[in-house]
Amino acid sequence: MNVLIILAHPDRYSFNHAIAGKCKDRLTENGHSVILHDLYEEDFNPNISMIEIPRNGKIDDVVKKHCADLTGSDGIIIIHPNWWGQPPAIMKGWIDRIIRPGVAYEFLDGDNGEGVPNGLLKASVGLVFNTSNTSEEREKEIFKDPLETIWKNCIFDLCGVKQFDRRIFRIIVTSDLQQRQAWLNEVEKVIDKYFPKN
Amino acid sequence: MNVLIILAHPDRYSFNHAIAGKCKDRLTENGHSVILHDLYEEDFNPNISMIEIPRNGKIDDVVKKHCADLTGSDGIIIIHPNWWGQPPAIMKGWIDRIIRPGVAYEFLDGDNGEGVPNGLLKASVGLVFNTSNTSEEREKEIFKDPLETIWKNCIFDLCGVKQFDRRIFRIIVTSDLQQRQAWLNEVEKVIDKYFPKN
Repeated sequence: MNVLIILAHPDRYSFNHAIAGKCKDRLTENGHSVILHDLYEEDFNPNISMIEIPRNGKIDDVVKKHCADLTGSDGIIIIHPNWWGQPPAIMKGWIDRIIRPGVAYEFLDGDNGEGVPNGLLKASVGLVFNTSNTSEEREKEIFKDPLETIWKNCIFDLCGVKQFDRRIFRIIVTSDLQQRQAWLNEVEKVIDKYFPKN
Repeated sequence: MNVLIILAHPDRYSFNHAIAGKCKDRLTENGHSVILHDLYEEDFNPNISMIEIPRNGKIDDVVKKHCADLTGSDGIIIIHPNWWGQPPAIMKGWIDRIIRPGVAYEFLDGDNGEGVPNGLLKASVGLVFNTSNTSEEREKEIFKDPLETIWKNCIFDLCGVKQFDRRIFRIIVTSDLQQRQAWLNEVEKVIDKYFPKN
């Protein structure tokens, strides 16, 4: 399978990067093809412009490449920290610019954008790995865990990606090496579950 | 009162801009002092860097100015479209970079960032105006309206801003001039409610 990994964290030594490395290695071991976009390393520009917005808007080569990688993928893996119940801005910009009409979803004829779109992505699995410094109880009770519905309902389901799994590793800031190793083992198990050995 | 308006929409002729203009005009008529940041016009860079992240991290003059405007405000007004249940990336970048530790919130002594922070903002009111092309029913039932908890709980309440109101104007893409005028009248009423004439 072709698996696309999108990573957003400014520190190349972050645990997010360790997760991405583990995903890539395990997917490769299992015989899959991997494309990894490290958005910070690519200095991805998050700000969509007006000319880019319409369905047939003018898009640059960077966006074209990202869109091709997205539509060509059988599985999508998203990796980022939980910042304010949302992804970092650079990941939000990837969503704004790459999850395009005509690429990831489309409105029916006669629909000007007010209706329910059809998902276009052929990917069957969407996985999300998040790191967090908020306890599970506080995240669910106080903050209502917006990242869950954002990725599951607002994005993957809308674009036609029906299988969804999300793992949250917490509390990152006080975690030790042993804990992090256990989390990376969990990442490996998740990869094996959705992208087993060919 | 000192009121800070943060606006994020790439089209200067957008209804979001009309909302911002109406807020600014009415606040001025009511005798308040207004600072309006049009993030797209300012070409605001949304990507926080590693050196910026720590409490005493190195921040540039743009971030310093934004932080000063934030801490000096008695009321905060946020204006943006609902894109994927979240703000546009440029607004997310404003959150990531300006809602800083030591500026908008702080952890107690001995807390490394895993606990419950204290809000530091003196602003008593946080208002959010969103535009949307999704029906209220679909937003609530399918998408769980993540923007509500993001602004109310994850951001304003955490930073100590206790009065919260949010208005969503929908469906933008099919709205006519008369509808938009009615919405602008509603904006005026909301301003009068929270920031009455001196």
